Amino acid sequence: MRWRTRSLNAPSPIQQFGPCGRIMKNSAMVMQIQDPASQRLTWYKPPLTVLVIKKVHDATILVPFVQLVHWLVHDKSMVVFVEAAVLDDTLLKEYGDFSSVRERLMTFRAGTDDLTDKIDFIICLGGDGTLLHASSLFQQSVPPVMAFHLGSLGFLTPFEFNNFQDQVMNVLEGHAALTLRSRLQCVVLRKTTEDGKDKKKPTTILVLNEVVVDRGPSPYLSNIDLFLDGKHITSVQGDGLIVSTPTGSTAYAVAAGASMIHPSVPAIMVTPICPHSLSFRPIVVPAGVELKIALSPDARNAMWVSFDGRNRQALQHGDSLYVTTSVYPVPSICAQDQISDWFDSLGECLHWNVRKKQKQID
Amino acid sequence: MRWRTRSLNAPSPIQQFGPCGRIMKNSAMVMQIQDPASQRLTWYKPPLTVLVIKKVHDATILVPFVQLVHWLVHDKSMVVFVEAAVLDDTLLKEYGDFSSVRERLMTFRAGTDDLTDKIDFIICLGGDGTLLHASSLFQQSVPPVMAFHLGSLGFLTPFEFNNFQDQVMNVLEGHAALTLRSRLQCVVLRKTTEDGKDKKKPTTILVLNEVVVDRGPSPYLSNIDLFLDGKHITSVQGDGLIVSTPTGSTAYAVAAGASMIHPSVPAIMVTPICPHSLSFRPIVVPAGVELKIALSPDARNAMWVSFDGRNRQALQHGDSLYVTTSVYPVPSICAQDQISDWFDSLGECLHWNVRKKQKQID
Amino acid sequence: MRWRTRSLNAPSPIQQFGPCGRIMKNSAMVMQIQDPASQRLTWYKPPLTVLVIKKVHDATILVPFVQLVHWLVHDKSMVVFVEAAVLDDTLLKEYGDFSSVRERLMTFRAGTDDLTDKIDFIICLGGDGTLLHASSLFQQSVPPVMAFHLGSLGFLTPFEFNNFQDQVMNVLEGHAALTLRSRLQCVVLRKTTEDGKDKKKPTTILVLNEVVVDRGPSPYLSNIDLFLDGKHITSVQGDGLIVSTPTGSTAYAVAAGASMIHPSVPAIMVTPICPHSLSFRPIVVPAGVELKIALSPDARNAMWVSFDGRNRQALQHGDSLYVTTSVYPVPSICAQDQISDWFDSLGECLHWNVRKKQKQID
Amino acid sequence: MRWRTRSLNAPSPIQQFGPCGRIMKNSAMVMQIQDPASQRLTWYKPPLTVLVIKKVHDATILVPFVQLVHWLVHDKSMVVFVEAAVLDDTLLKEYGDFSSVRERLMTFRAGTDDLTDKIDFIICLGGDGTLLHASSLFQQSVPPVMAFHLGSLGFLTPFEFNNFQDQVMNVLEGHAALTLRSRLQCVVLRKTTEDGKDKKKPTTILVLNEVVVDRGPSPYLSNIDLFLDGKHITSVQGDGLIVSTPTGSTAYAVAAGASMIHPSVPAIMVTPICPHSLSFRPIVVPAGVELKIALSPDARNAMWVSFDGRNRQALQHGDSLYVTTSVYPVPSICAQDQISDWFDSLGECLHWNVRKKQKQID
Repeated sequence: MRWRTRSLNAPSPIQQFGPCGRIMKNSAMVMQIQDPASQRLTWYKPPLTVLVIKKVHDATILVPFVQLVHWLVHDKSMVVFVEAAVLDDTLLKEYGDFSSVRERLMTFRAGTDDLTDKIDFIICLGGDGTLLHASSLFQQSVPPVMAFHLGSLGFLTPFEFNNFQDQVMNVLEGHAALTLRSRLQCVVLRKTTEDGKDKKKPTTILVLNEVVVDRGPSPYLSNIDLFLDGKHITSVQGDGLIVSTPTGSTAYAVAAGASMIHPSVPAIMVTPICPHSLSFRPIVVPAGVELKIALSPDARNAMWVSFDGRNRQALQHGDSLYVTTSVYPVPSICAQDQISDWFDSLGECLHWNVRKKQKQID
Repeated sequence: MRWRTRSLNAPSPIQQFGPCGRIMKNSAMVMQIQDPASQRLTWYKPPLTVLVIKKVHDATILVPFVQLVHWLVHDKSMVVFVEAAVLDDTLLKEYGDFSSVRERLMTFRAGTDDLTDKIDFIICLGGDGTLLHASSLFQQSVPPVMAFHLGSLGFLTPFEFNNFQDQVMNVLEGHAALTLRSRLQCVVLRKTTEDGKDKKKPTTILVLNEVVVDRGPSPYLSNIDLFLDGKHITSVQGDGLIVSTPTGSTAYAVAAGASMIHPSVPAIMVTPICPHSLSFRPIVVPAGVELKIALSPDARNAMWVSFDGRNRQALQHGDSLYVTTSVYPVPSICAQDQISDWFDSLGECLHWNVRKKQKQID
Repeated sequence: MRWRTRSLNAPSPIQQFGPCGRIMKNSAMVMQIQDPASQRLTWYKPPLTVLVIKKVHDATILVPFVQLVHWLVHDKSMVVFVEAAVLDDTLLKEYGDFSSVRERLMTFRAGTDDLTDKIDFIICLGGDGTLLHASSLFQQSVPPVMAFHLGSLGFLTPFEFNNFQDQVMNVLEGHAALTLRSRLQCVVLRKTTEDGKDKKKPTTILVLNEVVVDRGPSPYLSNIDLFLDGKHITSVQGDGLIVSTPTGSTAYAVAAGASMIHPSVPAIMVTPICPHSLSFRPIVVPAGVELKIALSPDARNAMWVSFDGRNRQALQHGDSLYVTTSVYPVPSICAQDQISDWFDSLGECLHWNVRKKQKQID
Repeated sequence: MRWRTRSLNAPSPIQQFGPCGRIMKNSAMVMQIQDPASQRLTWYKPPLTVLVIKKVHDATILVPFVQLVHWLVHDKSMVVFVEAAVLDDTLLKEYGDFSSVRERLMTFRAGTDDLTDKIDFIICLGGDGTLLHASSLFQQSVPPVMAFHLGSLGFLTPFEFNNFQDQVMNVLEGHAALTLRSRLQCVVLRKTTEDGKDKKKPTTILVLNEVVVDRGPSPYLSNIDLFLDGKHITSVQGDGLIVSTPTGSTAYAVAAGASMIHPSVPAIMVTPICPHSLSFRPIVVPAGVELKIALSPDARNAMWVSFDGRNRQALQHGDSLYVTTSVYPVPSICAQDQISDWFDSLGECLHWNVRKKQKQID
């Protein structure tokens, strides 16, 4: 029995409320959204360049990496980009028949070379960290990402490596469901000096999992003020605060007690870390709000911010951090579909509701 | 500093992923949505009929009720509907000067008389329960609801009664932000007898807070299977399961450990009640999915379902409960706006993060 | 490196506080306690009678049951007691060569026949429920209990059935560590009628896991007052309240959010069930306190109490429930020792901290 | 209605289990314990020296401090010790009539001067931190501590300052209930170098609240192995681990999700900080066990340990931390009694179960 077409969006609410009540139309605030359940990848033109991201210093990934790159270069005639650090790996240098491939690879250095508009397709090998790394390399539009795990399923790495050729071909032919994983745009605004001379440019970083503010090495509790759309919402006294995407709700946030949010729900999760207050439960707010985080006026110590676990830096009195949803999601290719991939990873990665079945008591 | 217009919806994601990747367009699955932040009430024609819902058997509400109804009838010349049970209240019968009003009231009996298309506007007096009651009276389109608390702020009752005339006038003139509180459409399908004769019609009930399935009076744990879009997701062993709207996330679900979700996030919350498994954390899924709940094949006992705390009934082997988001939200009028009303009620109703400020240790 | 003899009791605290401060001696309040780590079973005289408790209606237990009873009767010449209901089981009636054993068994009916001083030793077959049943049969002194699981380890059933003969012989020879599992003495005092005529005798029940007070079939929240040593401590608004032993902390209490307490810690755990208040965290109080539970004066509904999941009954206004630690523990025989048995069962029964080891992110 | 004398210890369990079962006596493992409920302070000889501990750099404490010290010196002729840093406070230097008192004070420097056997009585002014400081000054026997809060009640500071003279007199006359707050003896064993030359002496520190092991400034999860009485119990992957006394259960541990334990329960609480595993619930073990904490063999980073928030230091591979209950508790003087003081502080400091009373729904 089915009532309507399968969908992830809720049905459009009826906008007549009794005989007289209506929603006031405001065309400036209307947007068109495609149902996440129907999001599929297509190619405007055939992808030629592929970036392969490999976990470094992990011997178990070496063979699959060589197999994959060899196949992409020789069989598929694609232009393959690899991070220079990957080729510096001594394990790889000692690897026998890699030289014919090596000389045809394009290399780049993260943080130095700009990849914008150079990459059509990304393949990740080896753990959720590779996808976080891909996200950090593309601070604006991100090419479609296909992520293989080698070992056990990750939240962000749904594909098994066996039979990788067929699976990649399938994606290149455009047969793939896509999860658009929202990212958070984080802007750090530094205090301007009093004479106004030392005005610093804001720094912008996009995160896929979360931005974390904590007390760093200080033995004292953090004192952090949280604002939402300009309004002071609450103050955090504790180890810190996590602002995460739905994707990040199953990472650090879940360890700090958050509920888990499917990546297609348009929302931002706010989770305190070891709050001093017993009643400080995590909250989920609409994806469009803008959060601002700053030291409370009575805070004694700086707070420390990190972005997907990186770029750790101190924020002082007068500095502030703005967070909202970015227009640049990570288009992550599904192995099955958005729903199945997510529930499989909950079970595999978090043992969600895995239990011994209790026999009933007589 | 502002980056974009204030909004609750996330910005439309860029749909180009690198030089070649695109979202495949599927116009059948595109919908237009107005940003919740811009939802305001307007009147297609002036409201003439108003339903006043009053908590019964609460002496403290008597005077405000009489004041309100008197003003609506005599000063505003509106047609006022009141539930018959309210007028049966002996306290009201003994109330002095109510007779001139009483004879002009329209009455009805819940469950018997049909109010469809008869009510332009609803005013609630006295607690979150009155709004749940309003929701139950309108199983399809719901007229705009303005809810007054008498005493302390409720989640669903943002207006103070002082100065009620100005506040009602303000709403009648169309100056009001609106929260569209999504409801869940719950359908109970009973097992058909084997000869197929006893085919029962499905029952449909809309809930504003939650539908709960529990073990009822049985001393044994529930054994419940949960399906999402037809796929078996998990089995629940414990006291039961709560499927709630974002509105309901701050009701029973929060007591069972859920995070709190702002009512404008399009989502459904699934929360186990005292699960046998330590790792059964609550989850938040997209508003458009369809959940199905049924007894596990090895369950010994029936499960009991209730809808916003009412209509309690047993479900047996072979029966099932389908839940998805309804097209009929409750249009609840904001006292300030969607964000401020919500955070104020978190603090007031749940003491969210209310704490003694700890002095730092020297 | 060792500082002192292995022990579970804390070392006696030094009772001199600086040059002048002392504890005032009060010999009336001094007790001698043996360290739980040294508790071993010994037999004052050789055990002759053994009660075998078998889960009813479970076909998988039939063969082990027959093997065990046969061996006890024929090889060990022990007098074996079995509950009459066990022999009524049709599965057993159809079992071939059981008749020679059956005619030598002693039977009794729970709730009718008194077993006091008749049983030297108890053997349980089949799940934590059998031990709860053993506890309910002996409301005062309990003979030593040896509990076999058939399938997966339970909290209360540490022995594997393979090689049961050697294991039972070992225990009968007095080589066994013992966990004294404290029980709670629960007394229900009914309201006396006003003329004083209808004075009801208090009912006393000992529980091994927990006594639960909940709202029963009522849709309204419970309103329960909790007193400790006569002082009003707090009021519970929610689904109910669990008062549990350390043994029971891993049963219903853990599902309701409690921390897990080793059975040798002398304590009582108080855990709310789905409390309306976000800050109502479970508490652990000393084993010697007396708790009193009663309906709050403004409660609308009765509350329902159950004892280890049984004897469910309503408590009305004026009734009260007193709970304290009983002098009659259940002496439960360890398979290894108190510490190893407990941690093994946490892992096996609750998957405590069982997880996928996350590879570090590069 | 009372069944037995008010007590905090559980009654001695009956040690006969049916007609034959007994506990094997082991006099070497028997200890005498006085019921915590009867613990009262007495003085072997009248206290003459008093240490006054004052929070530094807090102007609000200045006047009470001067009043108290003036009264102790001039009216009670006691020898008053004060930390030198307190007298260095410029605020105090500017304080008018303090010179007559100042010249009669004894001063010392923490970490340099030894106070053993010099102090009969301790008075703390100003917050839980002062008691932690007192604890750190006395690493063996601690004189009785009377702690005043100035402002709101703390967990460790039950006395109000109003009328301090009568309250101090009352204690000096020996009328006071005493909570013996257990401390944890923490021993850090450093790895010995391979040639055995660089053998380091173990460091021992007593903590009143907790010892914390965490990942420090590292962005990677901690990997910590936990042993109990020599047996490997579990591994922690997360932000860290808290081992706390019952006193400390209401400090950092409660923020990390622990249940709250009354200080008279002889137990040690083990609480993970943001564990990667959903099922890693806190546990409560008997006070006499010995825990050992070490880096897991596959840990990449050092772990950092701190003791009551101080003495932060790194532990490397091969180092280990041993924790057990010390024989030297902190004898903390009750304002009322052990039970009332604790529940009052739960309400005041943690808003435990403080809530808006929900009106029932009609």
